[in-house]
Amino acid sequence: MATLGAHKKHKVTVVGSGNWGTTMSKLVAENVKAYPTLFEEQVDVWVYEEEVTLPKESRHYDPSSELASKPQKLSELFNKLHENVKYLPGITLPSNVVANPDLVDSCKDSTILVFVLPHQFIPRVCDQLAGKIVPYARAICCTKGVDVSEKGIRLMSEAIGMRLNIYCGALSGANIATEIAQEKYSETTVAYDPPPMDSRAPTPKGSPNASMVDLISPSRPVPSERSARLKALPNEYPPLSHENVRKLFHRPYFHVRIVDDVVGVSLGGALKNIIAIAAGFVDGLGWGDNAKAAVMRVGILEMVKFGKEFFPDSAKTSTFTEESCGVADVITSCMGGRNFRCAKMATERGESIYEIEQKELNGQKLQGTSTAYEVNSFLKHQGLESEFPLFTAVYNILEGNAKPEDIPELIEPKI
Amino acid sequence: MATLGAHKKHKVTVVGSGNWGTTMSKLVAENVKAYPTLFEEQVDVWVYEEEVTLPKESRHYDPSSELASKPQKLSELFNKLHENVKYLPGITLPSNVVANPDLVDSCKDSTILVFVLPHQFIPRVCDQLAGKIVPYARAICCTKGVDVSEKGIRLMSEAIGMRLNIYCGALSGANIATEIAQEKYSETTVAYDPPPMDSRAPTPKGSPNASMVDLISPSRPVPSERSARLKALPNEYPPLSHENVRKLFHRPYFHVRIVDDVVGVSLGGALKNIIAIAAGFVDGLGWGDNAKAAVMRVGILEMVKFGKEFFPDSAKTSTFTEESCGVADVITSCMGGRNFRCAKMATERGESIYEIEQKELNGQKLQGTSTAYEVNSFLKHQGLESEFPLFTAVYNILEGNAKPEDIPELIEPKI
Repeated sequence: MATLGAHKKHKVTVVGSGNWGTTMSKLVAENVKAYPTLFEEQVDVWVYEEEVTLPKESRHYDPSSELASKPQKLSELFNKLHENVKYLPGITLPSNVVANPDLVDSCKDSTILVFVLPHQFIPRVCDQLAGKIVPYARAICCTKGVDVSEKGIRLMSEAIGMRLNIYCGALSGANIATEIAQEKYSETTVAYDPPPMDSRAPTPKGSPNASMVDLISPSRPVPSERSARLKALPNEYPPLSHENVRKLFHRPYFHVRIVDDVVGVSLGGALKNIIAIAAGFVDGLGWGDNAKAAVMRVGILEMVKFGKEFFPDSAKTSTFTEESCGVADVITSCMGGRNFRCAKMATERGESIYEIEQKELNGQKLQGTSTAYEVNSFLKHQGLESEFPLFTAVYNILEGNAKPEDIPELIEPKI
Repeated sequence: MATLGAHKKHKVTVVGSGNWGTTMSKLVAENVKAYPTLFEEQVDVWVYEEEVTLPKESRHYDPSSELASKPQKLSELFNKLHENVKYLPGITLPSNVVANPDLVDSCKDSTILVFVLPHQFIPRVCDQLAGKIVPYARAICCTKGVDVSEKGIRLMSEAIGMRLNIYCGALSGANIATEIAQEKYSETTVAYDPPPMDSRAPTPKGSPNASMVDLISPSRPVPSERSARLKALPNEYPPLSHENVRKLFHRPYFHVRIVDDVVGVSLGGALKNIIAIAAGFVDGLGWGDNAKAAVMRVGILEMVKFGKEFFPDSAKTSTFTEESCGVADVITSCMGGRNFRCAKMATERGESIYEIEQKELNGQKLQGTSTAYEVNSFLKHQGLESEFPLFTAVYNILEGNAKPEDIPELIEPKI
């Protein structure tokens, strides 16, 4: 229910319209209609404009029609057919989802920005938006992963929040977009915990200065004074409580749990790919389900340790061991994910995972291998490789310094 | 290392010689040789005597030999061939494992009793042993499961401990016996936490009185005065610390973690079978890995809740979420276990799980269905069915009151 005194409604924009972004726009649009006192009915989706022809998978494909061969603008087809024919063909979208190819226009007046962009586009898109959004808007980042380098760890949500000078939470879970678009049951975790904000803070102008977008290293956390510079949501709007944020994402087929731990949710989505590679290596040896489950369990505990070691004030054990973004996403990734499958094939065929990647992935890249290298470079710099024996074993196998058969010995706790 | 002053060594007996018991005797026998200052070299295994002929899987099978057709005593073949030809054919056992068909004789003088018996034999075997073992012996129960009825919950380890008036811990994990016998990597959890004991306690005589073997109900926990009646290990023996207990079970291919939580370890091995049925039901609908992982996660949290609700002073969250006996055993059971496979087939074929059980299991029975009924009868009696929606959903599907498709709605948390 809207709170007493609130007479404005939240406008929601989904920034990004790939497979996952379009799926998010579908479920968000279903929810804004379900809670008309909280949210404006129209949900804008920013579409990176391109010319497309109707694929066979589209619900509107008709080989005899002109549409089948004539290239048209993706956003126009989207709004005419209520279908993203390129990235989510075959799924009808609610009529209150509107594709908008103008980034700034799509986010204008929106109080809730749902970011679903490929990783590498986040800085550029945020820089285009900076200073042109509602200053008290809130964001949720649905892009998985973190930036890790020798110097430190930066969450996607932090990159967005700092560039736009707004609060940004995170959404991650055992979520294969196409299954959710088909309304097959799944769960997710939303991390949302805005700090106290100053209702008198001035409207920020333009991009924050360069130091704000620097890497967050363990020794240099986000400045605590930052929260005081964030602008509070005016009282005219319904509060963005956990309850109301949940209403935006929860569906009968998409169960949402809300937590405070943005760091844990973000780390889970990145580190699980290293675990999936380890599980694939071991499964490829034909060692059976005991061994695979053991590697997964050890991996989950290394996630917990990673969170506690480098984010002692924020990452919580339960985020990794009890939430969809942790244990469930590890399970899904180790059952049939791309990293798992390629690592398993590599062991079975006695080839390197890079050879498998080239042969099997049609030019797509594995995320797990780059994450394993980045995390290793960070751990090495901290002198903590031996504290994370499974992550380190994966790196050493990728480097050719160890074999999958060595994993039990490499991760064996010393008596 | 043996502690200063200790000049006696622990004698180990494995009570039971099925697939899992023989596997345990193999790894325990390897370890007693590795730590000759702690343990006597000979490990006795109690074998329930039967006449057997050599199967094809035996390492010693030779169709032209007399042995192939002539029935012989299992224990004699065991000691002659160093192989359990009936229950673990093809695996060579260390020569320091000795089969003994005399139960009382096999346990005489043993300070460590490793129980690996089918569930239903535990009371009878313990009653034969009561009063005839070393009074300060310690036991570890490797049989999974708990006895649940309307009235309460009894752990296997408690049943053993109370009948023999000794301390009994528990061992459980993602452990498929044959894979471990083949030295494929896996992990397990040992729960071991003896209470303070009275070094002056009298030697107990015979069985404890009937009330001692009653069910433990939430409202009637184990009498706390019981520990004072347990007899402490004399100083002549090396202490049975976590470190020394771990040395008895840990192998390079069988990693052991020791915890204090006997309740959690025991509950995990029972409740995971209900979760495997739920995961099978959902997977049979073709809903994909998101849905399966979600059901597993919800199930693990219901395990945690069950432990906290009924054993608030002992069961720990981490036992379920971080140990092999919890999360890893759930994963293994939901990947390919019997309960999972039968439930999945039932959904796929539109038959009841009982029809599948009859057609597919060659007379073997599913543990998950009976556990689901027992747990439901207990929860109903406590008025707490609605607090455990997944366990209750499984019961209702088994009863024909609900369908697998209803699971998301049945477990959906209310806003």
